[in-house]
Order: sequence, then C-alpha cells, then structure tokens
Amino acid sequence: MLQIKLPDGSIKEYPEGTSPREVAAGIGKRLAEAAVAAVANGAIVDLDRPIEHGESNGDPVELRLLTSRDREALDVLRHSTAHIMARAIMRLFPGVRLAFGPTTANGYYYDVEVDGRSISEDDFPAIETEMARITKDAEPFERFMLPVDQARTFVADLGQTLKVEHIDDELHKYGILSFYRQGEFVDLCRGPHIPHAGKVGAFKLLSIAGSYWKGQTDRSMLQRIYGTAFFDKKELDAYLAQVEEARKRDHRKLGKELNLFTISPLVGPGLILWMPKGAIIRGILENFMKTELMKRGYFPVYTPHIGKIELYKTSGHYPYYKDSQFPTLKMPADASAKELLDGLIAGNVDDAAQRVLLGKAGIPERLPDPASETKFTKPFFEMSVAERIGYLEQTCEFEEYLLKPMNCPHHIQIYAAQPRSYRDLPLRLAEFGTVYRYEQSGELSGMTRVRGFTQDDAHLFCTHEQVRGEFRATMELTQFVLSSLGLSDYRVRLSKHDPEDPKYKGAEGDVWRNAEDDIRSVLDEMKLPYDEAAGEAAFYGPKADFIVRDCIGRQWQLGTVQLDYVLPERFGLEYVGADNHPHRPVMIHRAPFGSMERFMGILIEHFAGAFPLWLAPEQVRVLPISDKAADYAQKVLNKLTEAGFRASLDHRPEKIGAKIRDAQLEKIPVMFVVGAKEAENESVAYRDRLAGDLGVMPLSQALARIQTETDERVFHQTATAAAPPPTEESGEQHAY
Amino acid sequence: MLQIKLPDGSIKEYPEGTSPREVAAGIGKRLAEAAVAAVANGAIVDLDRPIEHGESNGDPVELRLLTSRDREALDVLRHSTAHIMARAIMRLFPGVRLAFGPTTANGYYYDVEVDGRSISEDDFPAIETEMARITKDAEPFERFMLPVDQARTFVADLGQTLKVEHIDDELHKYGILSFYRQGEFVDLCRGPHIPHAGKVGAFKLLSIAGSYWKGQTDRSMLQRIYGTAFFDKKELDAYLAQVEEARKRDHRKLGKELNLFTISPLVGPGLILWMPKGAIIRGILENFMKTELMKRGYFPVYTPHIGKIELYKTSGHYPYYKDSQFPTLKMPADASAKELLDGLIAGNVDDAAQRVLLGKAGIPERLPDPASETKFTKPFFEMSVAERIGYLEQTCEFEEYLLKPMNCPHHIQIYAAQPRSYRDLPLRLAEFGTVYRYEQSGELSGMTRVRGFTQDDAHLFCTHEQVRGEFRATMELTQFVLSSLGLSDYRVRLSKHDPEDPKYKGAEGDVWRNAEDDIRSVLDEMKLPYDEAAGEAAFYGPKADFIVRDCIGRQWQLGTVQLDYVLPERFGLEYVGADNHPHRPVMIHRAPFGSMERFMGILIEHFAGAFPLWLAPEQVRVLPISDKAADYAQKVLNKLTEAGFRASLDHRPEKIGAKIRDAQLEKIPVMFVVGAKEAENESVAYRDRLAGDLGVMPLSQALARIQTETDERVFHQTATAAAPPPTEESGEQHAY
Repeated sequence: MLQIKLPDGSIKEYPEGTSPREVAAGIGKRLAEAAVAAVANGAIVDLDRPIEHGESNGDPVELRLLTSRDREALDVLRHSTAHIMARAIMRLFPGVRLAFGPTTANGYYYDVEVDGRSISEDDFPAIETEMARITKDAEPFERFMLPVDQARTFVADLGQTLKVEHIDDELHKYGILSFYRQGEFVDLCRGPHIPHAGKVGAFKLLSIAGSYWKGQTDRSMLQRIYGTAFFDKKELDAYLAQVEEARKRDHRKLGKELNLFTISPLVGPGLILWMPKGAIIRGILENFMKTELMKRGYFPVYTPHIGKIELYKTSGHYPYYKDSQFPTLKMPADASAKELLDGLIAGNVDDAAQRVLLGKAGIPERLPDPASETKFTKPFFEMSVAERIGYLEQTCEFEEYLLKPMNCPHHIQIYAAQPRSYRDLPLRLAEFGTVYRYEQSGELSGMTRVRGFTQDDAHLFCTHEQVRGEFRATMELTQFVLSSLGLSDYRVRLSKHDPEDPKYKGAEGDVWRNAEDDIRSVLDEMKLPYDEAAGEAAFYGPKADFIVRDCIGRQWQLGTVQLDYVLPERFGLEYVGADNHPHRPVMIHRAPFGSMERFMGILIEHFAGAFPLWLAPEQVRVLPISDKAADYAQKVLNKLTEAGFRASLDHRPEKIGAKIRDAQLEKIPVMFVVGAKEAENESVAYRDRLAGDLGVMPLSQALARIQTETDERVFHQTATAAAPPPTEESGEQHAY
Repeated sequence: MLQIKLPDGSIKEYPEGTSPREVAAGIGKRLAEAAVAAVANGAIVDLDRPIEHGESNGDPVELRLLTSRDREALDVLRHSTAHIMARAIMRLFPGVRLAFGPTTANGYYYDVEVDGRSISEDDFPAIETEMARITKDAEPFERFMLPVDQARTFVADLGQTLKVEHIDDELHKYGILSFYRQGEFVDLCRGPHIPHAGKVGAFKLLSIAGSYWKGQTDRSMLQRIYGTAFFDKKELDAYLAQVEEARKRDHRKLGKELNLFTISPLVGPGLILWMPKGAIIRGILENFMKTELMKRGYFPVYTPHIGKIELYKTSGHYPYYKDSQFPTLKMPADASAKELLDGLIAGNVDDAAQRVLLGKAGIPERLPDPASETKFTKPFFEMSVAERIGYLEQTCEFEEYLLKPMNCPHHIQIYAAQPRSYRDLPLRLAEFGTVYRYEQSGELSGMTRVRGFTQDDAHLFCTHEQVRGEFRATMELTQFVLSSLGLSDYRVRLSKHDPEDPKYKGAEGDVWRNAEDDIRSVLDEMKLPYDEAAGEAAFYGPKADFIVRDCIGRQWQLGTVQLDYVLPERFGLEYVGADNHPHRPVMIHRAPFGSMERFMGILIEHFAGAFPLWLAPEQVRVLPISDKAADYAQKVLNKLTEAGFRASLDHRPEKIGAKIRDAQLEKIPVMFVVGAKEAENESVAYRDRLAGDLGVMPLSQALARIQTETDERVFHQTATAAAPPPTEESGEQHAY
C-alpha cells in the first residue's frame, strides 16, 4: 500500500499505482477538476502519473495538488503551451525540426529550425489560430517511455534531427527516455504537462529572435519563438498591459529620448556614460544621500578603482567572483622581463637583445630539471618565439591588479590604517564607489545590467553589542531613502547560508546562526514583513534585501544590508576594548540605492521619465507668449536661477501651444507662462505638467510653491495600468 | 679674427683663441673677477676656454658672461663642488672609485665605490673640513684632452675602474676625451667648471643613499652622496631653512600624523586611500568647485574608468602615453579561446578538452604556411604547453580595455551622443574623473606623484568665435580658485608646440600658431605675466599652465587650460551652424586644481596641516574645564552640529591645558573653552589656534564669528622661513 501525506498533515493509504487525480477525486470532485498537476515529494508530476515511493522509502509520500492558483502550475501550463505552439507550427510548416522549448520567467519559447523561408511575426496570427483550434479540441497529454536506442530510432523516423543530436550528445547515458503525445504531435520531453490542452485559458505569441542550437555559435542557427500563457484571459490582458506600460517606460528608450545616458561602442558595452541631464539627477541623489549620511554619523572616504590581486585573495572575494571579473592588469614585475615579453609579442627584439633582457631580469635560460620536465624541455634560445612567450608566462613573477569588483577590501585598509579603540566605534565609512564586473554581453541591459556601476556603499565597523542597533539604523535609512522616492511597496528577504552549499565552506554554523538571529530579531522588532531564503547569503554573512515593487507591479531587488563576521577575521582587524585587550570588530555592508546605474534605470521607469521637481534636470521652463513678454521672461528666468533652480527660457518664435507641448514631451515638471499681463502684474501662469494650468499667481508665490515642493521632495505618482500580476523579481547583480 | 656679439648687441673683433675671461677683462676688471663661466652660442663653457667658432661659421659668436647672479652659473659651481667633494673623499678614503657626479635641481651628488667600510653621515664633518681646506686653497680647475686610448690607460693607472668601464661602454666612440685637474685630483669630465675652488661661497653635505652603477640592478652597488653649494652663505642658510620648513610640512609626514590619507601595500603603491579627515577636505573642495561650475554654466557628467583600446587609438593618446599606462585588460574576445588560454596557463585542461575549445573558438590547428613560416612550425597538438600559450597569444583576437589615463575621449563620446547645434554651444562638460597612469615606482611620492588621481576636469566645446571668451573665462576661474586658497603668487607658462619635435608631427603649423596667438592675446588682455616654452604643448594643442609658488617659496605646476583643434578632428565632431551647415567645434581642456591628490598634497604643505576653518575636517572643539561644565559643553556641541559645523567634545578627565595642547597638535582651528561661568552666561572662551585666546564672548557671537569665517573662506597665512630662493618647479605629471 501507498501512504500519502497531504498538506494538512493527514496521512491516508492508497493502492500502489494511485495517481494524484485519484487522490484529488477522493477528496472532492471540484478539486479533481481544478487540479492540473501535483508536487510529490518535492517534484512536480503529471496529474495522471502513478505516485512512486521515490527516495522516501518507508516514509509516506508528501503530496500537494496544484491548481491554477499555484505559481508552479503556471509553469506547467506554459510548457504545455510550448508543445501546443510547436504542434501548430508543424502543421503550418511541415518538416520543422524542434530543439528545446522551456519556460521563462513570464512565458515560454520554442527553438525551431525551418527549411525554406523563416518564420516571421506576420505568421503569428495563423499560428495562434491553429493553437486556438488545438486548445479547443482539448486533447490529453499522454506520457510514454522508450529505451534509449528505440527512442533514437523513433525521433530519427520523425525527421527530428536535432533531437537525435541531443540524444547522441547527452541523453545516451540514460537507459530510458520519456515522450509526450498530444494528438498527432509527439515530443521527446521530461514533462510534466497539464492533463489536456483545454486547460490553457489564454495565450499569445510575443516575439521572435535568433539563437544557436545549444547556445553554441558553431552549431545551427535556429529561430526562437516567444509566447506566454495564462489560465485566465484577464491575467493575460493585465500582463500585456503591464508589458505595454513597461515598453513605454523602458529606460533604454526614455534614456535616449531624454538624453539621460548613452553607451558608446568605443568605450565598451555595459559601460554607462551619464549625459548632463542624467548626471544632474545622479548628483542630486548623491547629495541627498550624503546629507543623510552626515546626519547619521558617517564619514566619507575615497579609494582607488584597482587593487592588487593579493587584496582580493586575502578578502576571499577572488575565487567567488572569478567568473564575473574583468581580466587582471598583469605585467611582469621586473621591468626588463616586461620589455622582453612585450618585445616577443610585438616581434621586434633579436636574440642578442633578448639575451641581455633575460640576464637583467634574472630569468634562467632553462628551468632546473624537476620543474621543467613536462613543460620546458629546451633551453630558451632553442625555443620558438611562441614557446618563449609561454615560458615567460610561466616563469616570470607578475604584478597583478584587479579592477575592483567591490569596495569593502579598500575600506578595510582604511580601518586598518590606524590603531582603533572601542571609543572610535561604530566607525561608518561611506563612499560612492564605482566597481566593475564582467557580465556576459548577452546579459547586459541598459543601466540595469551593466559592467561598471557605482555603489552608494558604506561599511560599518562595530562591536558585537552595537550590531543590532547599527543594523536597525541602516534598515531605517534604507526605508527612508526608498520612501523618499515613492518606493514604499517592498518586502524584505532574509538571505541565509546553506550548510550544504560549498560556498559557505569553513563557515562556523554557530556564528552564522547567531548572525541570522540578530537580523531576524531586528526585522521582528521593526515589524517588517519578510521571507527567508537559504543559500542566498553572501559568502561572508547573511543579509536583508529590499525587494521593491514599482508602480507597474514589477519587482526589483534594491537596497541591501549585510552582516559580516568573516572579513574582519580574514584581515585580522582589531580594536582595543574598554578592557584594554584587542577584540575583533563586526562589519555591516550596506547600500540603500544598491547601484546608482541600476537605481537610476529603475527610477526612469518608475517615474516614466517624468521626474519629480526636486530631481528634474530642468525644473522650470519659462514660456513667453510673445516677444512683448521677452524682457519679463528673462527677468523671471534670472529670479529662478538666482534662487538656485534649474530653469530655461523658450524664446523660439513658436506659438505658446507648441512651446507647452514641447515642454510636456521633455517632461519639464513646471512651466511659467508669461504674457504682457503677467509682465505688468509681476505674475506667472503656473502650469504643472500633470495637473495642468493652476492659474495666474504672483511670481513670489509661484517661487515659494516650487521651493516648497522641492524642499519637501514631493512626488506625484503617475497613472498606472490596472493592478497587474507581480512579475518575477529581477535578478540581483549587485552582491558585494 | 674672431667676431663676438655681446648681449647688448654690440659686435667686437678679437684674435683667434681669445677666452671669455679676456673678453670680460676687456669690458672691465670687476666683470672679469665676477665672471665664473660663459655661454658661447648657447653652450656653457669654462671662463678660460678659447672661444671656438662652433657651428655658426661666418656669423659672430654670441657670448654671454655668467656671474653668481645667473642660474646657469649655480649649476657650474655645484658641479665643481662635486669634484671638490670627490677630492676630499679620496684624501680620506684612499682607493675610492668614482662613478658620476652630476648636479640636481637643488645641489649635486657623486656616486662612489669604497672598499672596506662604507661612508656614513658621521663622516660628513671630516669630509666638509677637507672640502673647506680645498676651497680655501682656491686652486684652479684645469682642462686637458687625451685621445681615447690614452685616456683609458690614464684612468686605469689611476685605479678608476668604473671610468674604464664607462669608456668601454660608451665613450670609446669619441676620438678624444676631456679631463679636469684640480691639484692632485684629476677626473674624466666634460665640464665646464668654475675657474678655481675659491668661488664656492658655501656648501653642505646633505644625505647618503644607495645607487646602482648606471642605474642597472645587475651592476655594482654604489654610495650616492648628496650635497649643495651656493655662491653665498646667506643663500645656503635660506635654502637649508626652506628644506627644514619643507621637512616639517612634508605632506607624507603630516598626512600620517593627521590621518588624512594612507597607502596600502595590498592595494598598491601610488594609490591613495583618502581617510575620513582627508576625504572631508576633498569633499569641501569638490563642492566649492561644483558650485562655481554651476554658476558658470557647466554641466556634470559621469564616465567609466575604462575604455576600449580603440577609443585611445582614435584619440591618438595611445602611442603618447604607452610608457606610462597600466597594462591593458586583455582577454580573448571569444569565450572558448579565453577558457583555453586560462586552462593552459593554469595547466588544467587535457588535450581532448583543448581540441573541443580550439574548435569552438574557430582557431586553426596550424597557420597557413606563409604566416607561420618563422614562428609556428608545428601543428598545435605537437607543441609544448608553453608554445601553445604563445600560439594563442599571437593568433587570437583580443578584446582590450585601457584603464583611462585621461577623461577627454569619454567626454567626447557624450558630445557625440546627440546631434549638436550652434545654439548648444559652448557646451561645458565637467567631471571629477579619476585617471590612472603607471609611473615608475621610484618616482612615486606621497600624494604628489601617484598612479591614480582625480582631475577636476572639464571639456568645453565651442565655436571658433567663442574660443577667446571661453579661454579667458577658464583662466579667470583658475585664478579665483587658487586665490581662494591663498595661492595668489603664480606665473603663467604658455606651452607651445615645437615644429622640430616629432610629437607634433602632422600638426598644421598655421592652426597651431593661431591657437598660440589666441592664448597670447587672452594673456595680454588679462595683463597676466607669462613666459613661453616651445615643445611643452600637449600633442593636441598649446596650453597655459599656472606655476604657483607656495608660502615657503617652492614652485608647483597646478591649474592648466588647454586649447585643442586636434581631437575634434580625429573624432569627426560636428555641430550645425546658423548657416545650417556642419562645422567642427574647438575644444578647451581645463583643470584648475589639476589633480585632487596632488593639490591636496600641496595644500597640506602650504598650510602645514593647519587648514583654514572652512576646510578643517574638525572645525571646532569644545573643551569643558571640569565635569561641572559637561552638560553645557554638550549643549554647545549640539548647537554647533545643528548649525552644520564639524565639531567634537573633549570629555576626557584631563586638565584644560592638556586638552588645549592636544587640540593644537591636531590643528583644530577653533576651541570653545567652557567652565561653570560660561555655562551660567551662555558664553564661551574663544580660542583661535593661531591667534590664541580671544576672550569670553556670548555663544551666539562665537557662532556668528565662525560662520562668517567659514562663509568668507578666511585663511591665515602661517609664518614662513625668511624669503628663500625659489626652488625648481616640481615636474608636471598631470598632462592630459
């Protein structure tokens, strides 16, 4: 008999071979109909798949039924929709070869290889019509298994050459492979799937792109067709509205239209050049932060953008970040060795000159036998040029710098630069520090995924007793900063270590658990909602991350506060306690914005480019109605400039309507419209970009109004699309 | 007959073989006695050397007599003093071998090799006594010539083995060599020298250091003995006082004592870590500058610290800065090639894996014959590991980034990021941009000679018509900035191109001359004193540099303003003119501070660490006389902090005298001393660090006083040594 444990804790017995659908039916007919798949001992399975004991021999199988309300069910639905799309395509494009068809954060795709003409977006309506036919027919997804050699013959007979290659490449090691059949369509597939195509409530094809078979540039070029699907038409509509709204707000598009930032191929991909208007906003954000930091007892520091590789080996960052680092700045430490290597590569030193340089550099002409045995069998001057280069690469002592991927090791050097006493703590060192990480070019995106970014970084060095208080203060600072920008809808994630993960090897469990308890108690004390995620901690300690939901429902990881018992240990940091003995300080790493680039990208989208008055690069534009008001308009501009506002004057000979339209398009928050009457009365017609005409008022009153709005950092939320489903949170790049 | 033209323009005839002394005697006995050497057709010669026609055959020889008032004479005197020192040493240390004995900016040295025990500073009095004896004897310096083979025998007989080596190394190509004899002392030497040792008015040995023969680490280790000499004892005393004052003000010493900055071996030499107190000062200077820039119509930008090598090849910086660049960040552009190269260097990929990676990277296993002939004779898999590395180094396509050595190419990318119209000009883009240059480690010094520094950089893009106005405005900004810091004693150097110098190859003479005329006319218009220096221009245009004299008489090159017609051309920059046609803009590069690091180093020395109130990291310290005043002291501190002052409270249980002494040592500009009486009257005893006790005054009055002093950026010049001779200007590192 099969023992099954349900989410409510109840355990029931069923005959061997019972399926989740049968368990559901036993509970109620409604549930059996609503169910689309199940989770058995942690694995998602088909509704009709017989439940296996799996690894839990002896223990009951834990079973959870999935309905359309479960996130996991949506993934199953979307993967089935990928099959449905592939089936539709095969009907319309006979001879199509299928590659892979997985789900994505917000939908699915299928990579296909078509002969003759390629698929274009113009084909989408026909494909969608065919898909609608298939979902209407509501045929079931049926699983069957074949031994691997039969499976190979089977897909070969179907003409699915890519599947054959995939079996040869990777799957041949498995004895038996699973297939799913739906009507005439059969696909080699691990599953699981929804019971039948009728479960797909709504779907849409989205876009098309090129891709390489298995991502390898030396293999076939395929077409990747993206789509999405939902259980419900309303959800699809809300999602599409959100996508449309996001498209309009795309910071890459707005950044270009509003001249906020640019990326130059001569400088390099992923490297942001902040144009004046973007830089003004960044400067205001930085000053806002600096003022807060000064009030809260932080001290500024400045540190270089490179450091010796030894610094990062000491900190322990080196192995963890190796894959996302720029290559090192590396040269032979000895000047003659450098000259020799450069000369060999450039091909402009003869043997005599090489001999001199080799001598000066003190490099032997051949290595003593034991070391050279396998690699260097000949003396230097019998080697080819290429071999000589290799020989130097392996025998020279190199001086090696790393473009800094984080600021903490530098700040630690400042802590360590003078003796510290308990009276100096907490010591809070802050820097807008620019760091560099080599993200794959395919992952780069505007300002939100870049190769160089500036952290609003700080490191707090404190005693054990100060940890909770300082941690709380930094959390409160982050809350204050986010809410000042209208980002008040956030949750907190407590990222913990995972004792199984080799990343935390050598970590002392007690220290970690205590640190996690510290954070938890602060979060509880602050009554902050949070969830916990094991294995998401930094290698040096647990952290609290702010997951912020923007005004169109997308989630972003922004501010982070991290606790660190590891780096003080690795660098041997100390302070003299009140007991006159040396003690180890604790570190807190924190960045409320996270990265200026990413934060700016998100702000552009959050405000749809229409920044609030205190941030707008141009705050006020003076619009004279005619030439008669030109002098007065200039006077108004001067008043604005003297009062420290960023303002300009539109003295083009255009109609006032055109001037207003242009200012609206450039997202200028406030317009002062002036004509002869306003000039006479020393007044302005005050026009707010969102609220429209607010009427004529004395100039002094208008100035006071914008001063108040600036000082109080007022923001107007722009209209948003109807409550969309929250999308997946955007991955974090900005770990420390 | 010999025709001689004197500085007054007169031309006289003399017999062949006439010496400068004879010409001087013909003018007057006093001059003949005062003369120490002469300049004949631009070359400095001995007073008794027969005047030769030299290269000016036909034209009269231009002759200028040098007396103690001429800077060139001081060099001659010092080199002769090096001989006198060597002679004294040889008397005291028989068997000494002499190397080289040149002059330096402020004195001279001689490198010597001594057997048995080495020379120490304890020997200086004895050497100086012997030197005094020699100068008192006033024996003449006598020149004689020997054919090179006889010269070799001659120095060999003297036991001067290093001189023998020098003849063998380099001098053997000359037919005849010159010697100078003074009494029993003879030295192989090009000269010139003073007529006799009695001309040396004052001298002093300064220090001793190790040095390698000819600077080559594989040759003998020598001792370098430094000294200085003057025509006059008063000048020596003033110089020594200046050196002593400079020693006390040394920014490396003060920087450490006052915790302003640090350098960490783990980060790297020449890379400044700004500690909180230094960073506060830098932040104030940056804000001061930003406020000025905003007033003057500049826009901020931010740019990355790296750029593709192609950017610098386009700008033309690449070849010029090649020697002072950090190595590039270089990696195979193809990910598989990178993996292969990394694997080979780490030694952890087998042949099978290498074959896969080679295939993926599309690298042939051997090059087609013509290219490979000399270098790659074998297929890849027959090569040694070392050879394989070399093969990849030469066959892969590399992606290469440079740590930016200057900001202009990045700012140019921002200019080029959107279409520009004449209405947008002048466009002034400003950034505190950190740049990196690889100075030799021997040349590094504290903050003034570093490998990473932040320029207060800006680039102005303007029309031809705007050049003079913008150039003048930037010069005025520089004047304003320098004088705000008490650096009002400066001269300007107009650095021009040199048509002979290959650095300016391809420059169009007319463009350069016009640009130089533009600068000259601005300098004239501003009535600024300046001198001109050919061959000192940047490769892209002429410039005006501010050479500032600090309060102890040392000269530093600080702010610079540069005109550039070249880079706009190289990058093909354009704007649409009022005529609707495209035009080329002109660029101005400028940096009033120059570099924040260097400027800070100089400021530390200029103020001897005692920064004026507006810059001081800690402005006010509250000193309670006893515990009874503790509460009131805290209240005073709160008032200070609320008003935005950087202040602290010394609540240690120390006597008030000790507290004042410590605050003085930490160079706190203002102290508020408070006791029970002050608490009663809400007053403070105001103590100025320099002026001392200023008496008791109401707290409100004391606050108003420091507010005024801060707002007006008042500075008190600290006492200086008696007017010292200006020393040589410190070399410029901060070219663009």
